[in-house]
Amino acid sequence: MDPDGVAKQFVDHYYTTFDANRTGLGNLYQESSMLTFEGQKIQGSTNIVAKLTSLPFQQCKHSITTVDCQPSGPANGMLVFVSGNLQLSGEQHTLKFSQMFHLMPTAPQGNFFVLNDIFRLNYA
Amino acid sequence: MDPDGVAKQFVDHYYTTFDANRTGLGNLYQESSMLTFEGQKIQGSTNIVAKLTSLPFQQCKHSITTVDCQPSGPANGMLVFVSGNLQLSGEQHTLKFSQMFHLMPTAPQGNFFVLNDIFRLNYA
Repeated sequence: MDPDGVAKQFVDHYYTTFDANRTGLGNLYQESSMLTFEGQKIQGSTNIVAKLTSLPFQQCKHSITTVDCQPSGPANGMLVFVSGNLQLSGEQHTLKFSQMFHLMPTAPQGNFFVLNDIFRLNYA
Repeated sequence: MDPDGVAKQFVDHYYTTFDANRTGLGNLYQESSMLTFEGQKIQGSTNIVAKLTSLPFQQCKHSITTVDCQPSGPANGMLVFVSGNLQLSGEQHTLKFSQMFHLMPTAPQGNFFVLNDIFRLNYA
């Protein structure tokens, strides 16, 4: 599959899982994975899932506006840059967000895991 | 210098140069560099500078809101994620933007070049 197709498939899977069952995101990360969430740095799959599941809302819905991707160089990774809107349960307004992922191949299966994840709300 | 310090120094240099003299950005890119600008893919320092200098405004001023950075893995690169505001000459309103850079070390000097650059406006 072409890189844009892989990126779109990953993005669909990531946000569908986030909105349905955040603990299901754990197998996308490994112990080397890093998340910077609104400036807070978190490392490792367990800690990242703990952060995502502790966010102070029960339900949310991500709507994706743009997905850009580029190969990230010699290690055969892929950068995925996302912008979109986030609707939280009980909130009238949506929040704009931007997020980037650095996907790295997992040997030998040919899948990817998230090595880098940076999330920011763009306060409107 | 710590990674956050390197990232902030790069961001200051990049946007100061962008606002003062866009052609000066050319030496931050190499022939392998990729820019995705509002979804348009451009490769190589010459083409990237041609794109940046052809943007339809004479003057602009970037104001940075957030800078996040993470090491990008085995090749000793660094991911820098920026959000901020962009004021164009002759326009009353500022535009919000998000941009990510993947900086790679240049051997043997110990500097960095921009391997990946993805830019998006977040229309408010």
